[in-house]
Amino acid sequence: MKREFEPWIKDLEPDWQSVFDVCSRCPVVASARGFRLPAQSTIVEVLNGIVGMLFPGCLGRDAQRTFAGDHDGLLDASETAQALYSCIVPVAKYYCELDKCEFCGDCEKFARKVVEDFFSAGASIREALQLDVQAAYEGDPAATSQLEVVMSYPGLYAITVHRIAHQLVKSKVPLIPRVMSEHAHSKTGIDIHPGAQIGSGFFIDHGTGVVIGETCVIGQNVKIYQGVTLGALSFAKDEDGNLVKGVKRHPNVEDGVIIYAGATILGGDTVIGHNSVIGGNVWLIHSVPPYSKVYNAQPAPVVRTKEGS
Amino acid sequence: MKREFEPWIKDLEPDWQSVFDVCSRCPVVASARGFRLPAQSTIVEVLNGIVGMLFPGCLGRDAQRTFAGDHDGLLDASETAQALYSCIVPVAKYYCELDKCEFCGDCEKFARKVVEDFFSAGASIREALQLDVQAAYEGDPAATSQLEVVMSYPGLYAITVHRIAHQLVKSKVPLIPRVMSEHAHSKTGIDIHPGAQIGSGFFIDHGTGVVIGETCVIGQNVKIYQGVTLGALSFAKDEDGNLVKGVKRHPNVEDGVIIYAGATILGGDTVIGHNSVIGGNVWLIHSVPPYSKVYNAQPAPVVRTKEGS
Amino acid sequence: MKREFEPWIKDLEPDWQSVFDVCSRCPVVASARGFRLPAQSTIVEVLNGIVGMLFPGCLGRDAQRTFAGDHDGLLDASETAQALYSCIVPVAKYYCELDKCEFCGDCEKFARKVVEDFFSAGASIREALQLDVQAAYEGDPAATSQLEVVMSYPGLYAITVHRIAHQLVKSKVPLIPRVMSEHAHSKTGIDIHPGAQIGSGFFIDHGTGVVIGETCVIGQNVKIYQGVTLGALSFAKDEDGNLVKGVKRHPNVEDGVIIYAGATILGGDTVIGHNSVIGGNVWLIHSVPPYSKVYNAQPAPVVRTKEGS
Repeated sequence: MKREFEPWIKDLEPDWQSVFDVCSRCPVVASARGFRLPAQSTIVEVLNGIVGMLFPGCLGRDAQRTFAGDHDGLLDASETAQALYSCIVPVAKYYCELDKCEFCGDCEKFARKVVEDFFSAGASIREALQLDVQAAYEGDPAATSQLEVVMSYPGLYAITVHRIAHQLVKSKVPLIPRVMSEHAHSKTGIDIHPGAQIGSGFFIDHGTGVVIGETCVIGQNVKIYQGVTLGALSFAKDEDGNLVKGVKRHPNVEDGVIIYAGATILGGDTVIGHNSVIGGNVWLIHSVPPYSKVYNAQPAPVVRTKEGS
Repeated sequence: MKREFEPWIKDLEPDWQSVFDVCSRCPVVASARGFRLPAQSTIVEVLNGIVGMLFPGCLGRDAQRTFAGDHDGLLDASETAQALYSCIVPVAKYYCELDKCEFCGDCEKFARKVVEDFFSAGASIREALQLDVQAAYEGDPAATSQLEVVMSYPGLYAITVHRIAHQLVKSKVPLIPRVMSEHAHSKTGIDIHPGAQIGSGFFIDHGTGVVIGETCVIGQNVKIYQGVTLGALSFAKDEDGNLVKGVKRHPNVEDGVIIYAGATILGGDTVIGHNSVIGGNVWLIHSVPPYSKVYNAQPAPVVRTKEGS
Repeated sequence: MKREFEPWIKDLEPDWQSVFDVCSRCPVVASARGFRLPAQSTIVEVLNGIVGMLFPGCLGRDAQRTFAGDHDGLLDASETAQALYSCIVPVAKYYCELDKCEFCGDCEKFARKVVEDFFSAGASIREALQLDVQAAYEGDPAATSQLEVVMSYPGLYAITVHRIAHQLVKSKVPLIPRVMSEHAHSKTGIDIHPGAQIGSGFFIDHGTGVVIGETCVIGQNVKIYQGVTLGALSFAKDEDGNLVKGVKRHPNVEDGVIIYAGATILGGDTVIGHNSVIGGNVWLIHSVPPYSKVYNAQPAPVVRTKEGS
């Protein structure tokens, strides 16, 4: 942006100062001072580096370069590891010092452990993703190749980011997993909380409007369509009327379940038994046994016909 | 893109010329000639500058730089003011000269007034946003800190952009507010027309698929879930059969209302009384008094069980 | 990203190698070796070049430059043609050699033919888009100008990208059309398979959550709202239990139909007769004749009122 200003712009200073005064009273902004926290865009860059490591030449950072095969994959991976470490350290310090967290103490050591565990888990994450790719290819009549699935399917991108973010949740990294999962939400319309546990061979088709809550546990080879909600039925409150955080409040979905578009399944005690099929737009707030077929007696719409012209 | 072309590409010129001829007959493109209108990307850059002024170091342009505290906030704000002014002037001229608008006349003076009024309103916009952040933190069991809300919640981003765009609507700026709100729609799946009036402490959870129409009036401390529509029931037409623009056609929602996922509330005469709760998937086209609980007698889905293997 | 690494990062090499070994067994990644396939971002850049050719100065690459009128439109078009050609050649080779495709043989010749046909079709694509712009302007009471429609309406962007991608489908280009349509899906929440056939004067309002399947055939002057699905009722399987690809499985929608928000219309034999109106949230799996009005007997929601404080 240019630095030559209309002369009257300097007169805006008192108004800007008023905005800044409000900002200063905001606990978030005030506490951010002195911390060189990673910006959203920095975290997304790290995410893209990891995605590129998992699908070299197909997705993520420098896909064209890695496609050509004339890159140094190990160097790319080392850069990504370093960048992930550099994001985690200041975030850990922020949460340590300001939220009085006492679990980590040595934030550099914590961050190193997270990165090491992440790389240890890398191969099994990639194995799961391979099954996800196959599930999409086999489950969608419109899919013409596995390359098409990897390079264009939003459901595959969403589960890729989820598997990355969920590994960081397991390592108790604050903030960063949620920024990653909301980036995937922004790109795909699929909102998976990074805390959700999801088995391999998972396929979300179309995907816009899908919501999968924090405490969901989903088995293997589950298939979900657009607009499906796996959500909370109600929120527990403590004696002061504040919401209780961290309790189980979202359903479990066992192996081999298919959930059609627009279905809503709610509640932490709700279990969808394995190999069940849940029909479009169904509203379900109780468990069903394995091999259930659940569907709405769809209201036959009224059709009024007036032949014309 | 490279400038060395396959030799046959020059033979495409007549076809390109045909496309261009169609473009020239388009009123939008034809009328754009001679105007250096701001591109979408320029308007988004201005928007990010304003967001960065409201949440320094957390969101928007140069978040990492402003996080570090070694920036000049006043200089950033001045650049943003100048850039906003530079966007408004040509848009005002375009609308003045081509749509025969007669209300502004002196477009530079108009643009200066808009920027001054925007900065005057800045502190109260920021105050409202602070209440929005608190509402999200207190209303979502999955929220672990206010920083997480600011840096990753799509509902917070959507209301931030809305409060900016709505201030510009109040100043009668054409085009720019809608480009801003559609940018937020693109990033979040939340479609709030910039003309809607929304009180503070507003929280949209998940958010994908939410639609809030132009003439909605929403009170304070309202909470909305994904897929909620506050829309029009029908459109008035004039005697020539054209839609009448600008009439009240979307509902009012009073203070403290909660609207669960997928509910549809329609009509300009519809008022949801304060402290009401509207259940998931409800279809509502009439007013309800304060403290109402509105829910569907959800159709119990049919469950067929076939125990197997 | 920086190249100075923490000393322990080199110890991650065996883990990275394990990830890479899994990647090497992936048919997609392994087969990508030796091919300089275009990255997603490269395909999106080509798309933006084409969009800019269709709406010079309003949308796409270099909108601000083209707005000013001091650009060389022919040079821009030639660059776009070259870039499109350069994307198609390696993709055609990949599909030829790895999927044993035998239809093209000379991939350079194939790619040239695609580009030539694309430019031939350019003027008629632009004519259709002009009718789309008018349909949006006339169909939405909130639209204040055609410029606003072009510069901010997600439905217009989605149909623009669709008309481009569908022309490439007609030329039998693999992969690239789907990457383009999923880019539009990502930006707008509107998921139109590039294979769908859609007449001119098409308007999608709000649009988030719309799904239009591969084998849909849609007439002229059709209007669709957010959350509408034109989908498959079931998938045919072959004797081995694999899905049959390529069969007609999505509905036809004739001229002048309006489909309100959240309606679901399924099945390859379903035909919505011309000038019909389909109400919000309707679930429809059979044909209706022309001029039908189809609506749900909406369940009157239960309203419990408890006047208080």
